[in-house]
Amino acid sequence: MNRKSRREFLKASIGIGTGVAAAALGCAQSSDSGNNEQSFFKVVHSRRSIREYKPDPVPTQDIERILESAKLCPTAGNRQPWKFLIIRDKDKIESLKKATIEYRLSSRDDTAEKDEELVREEIAKGLSGYFSAPVFIGVLTDSEASYPGMNSHDGPIVASYICLVARAMNYGTVYMTGSVPGIALRKAANIPDRYDITCVIALGVPKSWPEKPSKKPLKELIVREEFVG
Amino acid sequence: MNRKSRREFLKASIGIGTGVAAAALGCAQSSDSGNNEQSFFKVVHSRRSIREYKPDPVPTQDIERILESAKLCPTAGNRQPWKFLIIRDKDKIESLKKATIEYRLSSRDDTAEKDEELVREEIAKGLSGYFSAPVFIGVLTDSEASYPGMNSHDGPIVASYICLVARAMNYGTVYMTGSVPGIALRKAANIPDRYDITCVIALGVPKSWPEKPSKKPLKELIVREEFVG
Repeated sequence: MNRKSRREFLKASIGIGTGVAAAALGCAQSSDSGNNEQSFFKVVHSRRSIREYKPDPVPTQDIERILESAKLCPTAGNRQPWKFLIIRDKDKIESLKKATIEYRLSSRDDTAEKDEELVREEIAKGLSGYFSAPVFIGVLTDSEASYPGMNSHDGPIVASYICLVARAMNYGTVYMTGSVPGIALRKAANIPDRYDITCVIALGVPKSWPEKPSKKPLKELIVREEFVG
Repeated sequence: MNRKSRREFLKASIGIGTGVAAAALGCAQSSDSGNNEQSFFKVVHSRRSIREYKPDPVPTQDIERILESAKLCPTAGNRQPWKFLIIRDKDKIESLKKATIEYRLSSRDDTAEKDEELVREEIAKGLSGYFSAPVFIGVLTDSEASYPGMNSHDGPIVASYICLVARAMNYGTVYMTGSVPGIALRKAANIPDRYDITCVIALGVPKSWPEKPSKKPLKELIVREEFVG
């Protein structure tokens, strides 16, 4: 590919994210009809955070394929200090939801004025989209790994790879730290103190693929050579 | 693609990383002959940490294309709290190298027994591969952004995307926190205290693409449903 045609290809890639392009990518299709040879740039440009899922299950082999590729991300000293906690059991997901509601209820400061049961219902309603996902993956790092100070890099990196690889297989994800907090996952899944919880990822077939959110222009983010003044 | 052929494709993808497959991907080619329509899985499976570079420059437009795609990674609340510090000026790179050597010299505990100049040369020798890169990118997060507690996710995520997107354009990278420490970058590029330094990324055309490092089998990393006992 010469420079000009490469430039044109990239220009086209950068345009992806509109509804039309998303449809062209087969975004709303289930994984079974997905194209695993999707171009790299199409995947990066079409990943979204998904907050509502179809009930379609995710086969075990698809979850494992996602993790198999995700764990090839860079990791300090090749330590791979991870555990991937896969939750698919409906009762276990319900426990995670309950623990999330209780935790979030305890951190609200308006429960004195409002009826606690009403606040609980309000929280549950806000969570229902997330909890339509058939799979939750807890991304954990091992505080007993060598150089545990590097876990704060390795956790987010592998988690973001999971979201990206899932997109390449036409699944949706959302990377959660607050909507479903680590503390609720720890309670629901009996996670030992040894493991730190980077995030909880919901995984499933998206109800729809949202439009691309507005992004800052690159020039706002770039500094050349040094900071001046 | 049906399930069987998809399984075979993935099996083939997972096999990538051997010298033969790397050659088939055109790994050792410069970016000008690169194929920007590389399959997503090929890119993920062929990314490596590169510790020696060819002197070939990286055109400005390629650097900007890498960042343009990388900044589409997930970011908490769509805050995008980043600055990308791009260093290409040879004198500036030399300042970064000098600051790195001085910092690493000051953190050695064997300089009492050894001649300081010898230790300095030893450190410089260990750094020469990294400093063969024509470009360094400092990934910074803004402590004055909303929810700065989320910067520890957003920094590593965008940095790992930079490395991955660069691979899709046939460039090599290495994500550094220790080899070239943030403190040296801060000094060399006059970075205000407001910005935290996630890492320094070297970027360029690899001298060669290393073999795939050994990875833990997935079964060692997976926990199903909950921790028991």
